[in-house]
Amino acid sequence: MSLFSKNTALSHLLKRHCETLCQEEHLSPEIITHALEKGSMVLLGNPAHRDVLPLLVGQPAKVKVNANIGTSPLRNDKEGELRKLAAALEAGADTIMDLSIAGDLRNIRQSMLDACRRPIGTVPLYAVAQRYIDAGKDPAEFSPEELFDEIESQAEQGVDFMTVHCGITERGAAWASEQNGRVMGIVSRGGSILARWMRANKKENPLLTEYERILKCARRHNVTLSLGDGLRPGAGADAGDAAQWDEVIMLGRLARTGLESGVQCMVEGPGHVRMNEVEAQIRGIKTACHNAPLYVLGPLVVDACPGYDHIAGAIGGALAVRAGVDFLCYLTPAEHLTLPDLDDVRAGVIASRIAAHAGEVAMGKASALDRENTMSAARKALDWKAMQCAAIDPKTLCAKRAEHAGEEVCAMCGEFCAVKMLR
Amino acid sequence: MSLFSKNTALSHLLKRHCETLCQEEHLSPEIITHALEKGSMVLLGNPAHRDVLPLLVGQPAKVKVNANIGTSPLRNDKEGELRKLAAALEAGADTIMDLSIAGDLRNIRQSMLDACRRPIGTVPLYAVAQRYIDAGKDPAEFSPEELFDEIESQAEQGVDFMTVHCGITERGAAWASEQNGRVMGIVSRGGSILARWMRANKKENPLLTEYERILKCARRHNVTLSLGDGLRPGAGADAGDAAQWDEVIMLGRLARTGLESGVQCMVEGPGHVRMNEVEAQIRGIKTACHNAPLYVLGPLVVDACPGYDHIAGAIGGALAVRAGVDFLCYLTPAEHLTLPDLDDVRAGVIASRIAAHAGEVAMGKASALDRENTMSAARKALDWKAMQCAAIDPKTLCAKRAEHAGEEVCAMCGEFCAVKMLR
Repeated sequence: MSLFSKNTALSHLLKRHCETLCQEEHLSPEIITHALEKGSMVLLGNPAHRDVLPLLVGQPAKVKVNANIGTSPLRNDKEGELRKLAAALEAGADTIMDLSIAGDLRNIRQSMLDACRRPIGTVPLYAVAQRYIDAGKDPAEFSPEELFDEIESQAEQGVDFMTVHCGITERGAAWASEQNGRVMGIVSRGGSILARWMRANKKENPLLTEYERILKCARRHNVTLSLGDGLRPGAGADAGDAAQWDEVIMLGRLARTGLESGVQCMVEGPGHVRMNEVEAQIRGIKTACHNAPLYVLGPLVVDACPGYDHIAGAIGGALAVRAGVDFLCYLTPAEHLTLPDLDDVRAGVIASRIAAHAGEVAMGKASALDRENTMSAARKALDWKAMQCAAIDPKTLCAKRAEHAGEEVCAMCGEFCAVKMLR
Repeated sequence: MSLFSKNTALSHLLKRHCETLCQEEHLSPEIITHALEKGSMVLLGNPAHRDVLPLLVGQPAKVKVNANIGTSPLRNDKEGELRKLAAALEAGADTIMDLSIAGDLRNIRQSMLDACRRPIGTVPLYAVAQRYIDAGKDPAEFSPEELFDEIESQAEQGVDFMTVHCGITERGAAWASEQNGRVMGIVSRGGSILARWMRANKKENPLLTEYERILKCARRHNVTLSLGDGLRPGAGADAGDAAQWDEVIMLGRLARTGLESGVQCMVEGPGHVRMNEVEAQIRGIKTACHNAPLYVLGPLVVDACPGYDHIAGAIGGALAVRAGVDFLCYLTPAEHLTLPDLDDVRAGVIASRIAAHAGEVAMGKASALDRENTMSAARKALDWKAMQCAAIDPKTLCAKRAEHAGEEVCAMCGEFCAVKMLR
């Protein structure tokens, strides 16, 4: 029995949007169907998300970019987050994750689903943990039932993809501790809550032991599972250790089980990885995870530039895309420091889009090369209008040029313009 | 006869500053001497530049960053450029190039030399061409004598390193034309002026035919020659073509001739190079140029992100450093659009420093790894003061944190902090 006969929600979604998807991705229906069936691609879209525009993520689709937004205890402003959502979409984000951890989460989530036709992702565990933290209680006291109820409730609400940290085990969490040689230990919020829960309850991760329950819910609503990397390295020095690979292997098994059950799965990846390790990491994870779409946070190739993690992440992201990554989660200049503001959101989305584009150019993707060639031809012709059309961010180009918008040459070279010199 | 006996200015400079240089670079006097003699390293510093702090560039010294500033016909403001100089130094630039092309160039240059103890570089051809352009004449009318006089005059004034486009030939310039398949033709300002001169005068490049005169002057003042890449690619599609390599080979020969004559030489490199070509380009140029220090502009791995060339350049720069590049010329967000303002200068220097650091981390350089480990330890301890000390740009870290400077956790996660969760 094929994926489509098991997952009828997906089957209907694809039928309804196939033509548009084929046009957007320059792919034939056969290629899309085949890639979805073998699991190298997923189609994000929960039919309960009103007017959702489904999105293909994975090979051979174009690389996509996600923007994380959401309230936090120190900055709890729903309207502000909705403005960030609009800014992220305007800058070209393909998806939005609502990582809110303060305020009325259900209400915030609904506002984001209403305001965004692009797929929305969440981390359901956050909502459960928040109730405990808000009540001054230990989040490790949550019951697995609460978590499964939350997943069910968010799926019904229309969330298109969910991060579930199913791969973290008691063994993996122990291996990721400083006692076992890690510099940073566990840095994933979801991973740290589950590690604390396992330690307190002396039980295995319920998201793993009761994975079947998640699959059942996900299949019904075509929620794509984003198998979270709770043990991802939080420092370049920690990348590639036993804890990380132990979880990766488990995520690969879970991705296969999911697909066999009619559930679409992505796998989440690092994190902090030095340049010399990026390609090995990406290819290793892809192989161990049967080429499931790989969704990475960065990777950050250096730790020492807080305030500029969008740049460190763009370096790693470009290398990762070239090595086969499918989906980039943005990093903003605020990462490791504070919640992003509107400018940070915009900077983060653009930096990730540049990384995606650089990787795709290096891979020789036709759509990426077309953009490059259009820009070069426009430059040669000193055609500023055409440059604007080809630019990843036309707005910034115009703003920089504003003072001399009427000039043929730019204010850097003036009549020293090399292009004009040889006409 | 060794380099030092031919170039007594260099010999004195090294003697006087050897101890400081050894401390800065964590290198022994023997290693420095040997690297200078074989030409894999240069010591920038013209004794006529009052109070200059000489700087080592090349393997195995740390990677250095240069900031280009200077007036242009559309933005001619000496004081503004001096503010940029200060901003660049404050952000951590190791050298400054004065690329002014408007105003009283000698006076501007002197102000910069006075204001900057770090080495200053120039492109003497600009001053010659400017006189013609300002007079409404064709810059191709300049006489070689004027150019050699300008070089002499700037050397006497104290300029520490000069870009001289000695490698561009009539053949190379023809090969670099659109008629021979280039998308962008020649994009170097110096290269385009010399190509125009050769075409108009039907003669070979005087900087090549009379290279001996440049060497004589450079040796006397220990001016380091930065052998310019007038035919560098101006689009990813043009990288690695016959015109580029023809010039690279010539630059390699000139670097060797220079060193044999007692003149320190660096080689300039691209430019626009796609990610998949960066390593091959860098290793190829290094080999063809006998491991002379390689000074690159970017490389820009994509053409389609004007307004963000500091990011496209950081991706390429990081890859280039990992492949052996020694010296990064910054690119600012203003590149291809206008003259940089103060914020652009700062953004450009920091982006290049991140690229240099990322490459050095990947190479396993001890000083770079130390910084990384210090940052990780500070993060683990939630020690914001220590993070600030380890950060490439402490100022931006503080600005982002300002609102919550007193808190132990950051405003992104609040009490959801993964580090605190498992304490």
